[in-house]
Amino acid sequence: MSLALKEAQKAYDLGEVPVGAVVVKGDEVIATAYNRRETGKNALYHAETEAIFKACERLGGWRLWECTLYVTLEPCPMCAGAIVNARIPEVHFGAYDDKNGACCSALHLFNMENNFQPKFTGGVMEEECSSLIKEFFKNMRKKKS
Amino acid sequence: MSLALKEAQKAYDLGEVPVGAVVVKGDEVIATAYNRRETGKNALYHAETEAIFKACERLGGWRLWECTLYVTLEPCPMCAGAIVNARIPEVHFGAYDDKNGACCSALHLFNMENNFQPKFTGGVMEEECSSLIKEFFKNMRKKKS
Repeated sequence: MSLALKEAQKAYDLGEVPVGAVVVKGDEVIATAYNRRETGKNALYHAETEAIFKACERLGGWRLWECTLYVTLEPCPMCAGAIVNARIPEVHFGAYDDKNGACCSALHLFNMENNFQPKFTGGVMEEECSSLIKEFFKNMRKKKS
Repeated sequence: MSLALKEAQKAYDLGEVPVGAVVVKGDEVIATAYNRRETGKNALYHAETEAIFKACERLGGWRLWECTLYVTLEPCPMCAGAIVNARIPEVHFGAYDDKNGACCSALHLFNMENNFQPKFTGGVMEEECSSLIKEFFKNMRKKKS
């Protein structure tokens, strides 16, 4: 999660909502990514989708069966769906997202009947992950006012 | 939807689950795509995510506010989440997907509180869209047996 936080900091420095993600297989880091929706001008450039895309490219297939995903914010429906589609069995996230979190907050996408069900833990390094996001939005409000 | 079906046929010819998608803005076709998860070896290569990715690239931003998406199968959670994230206001799909459809069958992702809510219609050219998929799975079972 420390590495995912470093990725989130890169997003922060670019003026993007600071979310970072890392895909790991055993002891090896397979892919790292951060949210770059604004600078990349693309709705698909969330940290998790980008990390999953890179991991599939790196491993040469759409199934990430032996991988674990670390992400600083609870995945949104798109990203949680991508995790299910990529068959990632284990997810650890930092801050909870009451409005849009699709693991357990706003939705329970990892418990869908007749579908692949990743295990997950939330609240990992929660304080660090959420304070970076809070700081980002505080600064954004300051700039706007 | 006829154009989306032509895209689905391309997937069929490659041995992919035959789903096709088209993004339209006014009278203009902005992006076309088909499912190529197996041949592209990537979990993100669903027809809708690919079409949304291309449309964002073409229009130079992550918001597809004035676009309409046509897709031959009800979007899965990942793709429905991508539609919400890209702010696509209108979706038309062909076949319903009882197991994984995230518009109205297995989930209602387009009615999430405090989130963007695309309008949608299902069952557009349903017979053509679903028979292509049924034929695909029938042939797949034949090959396996």
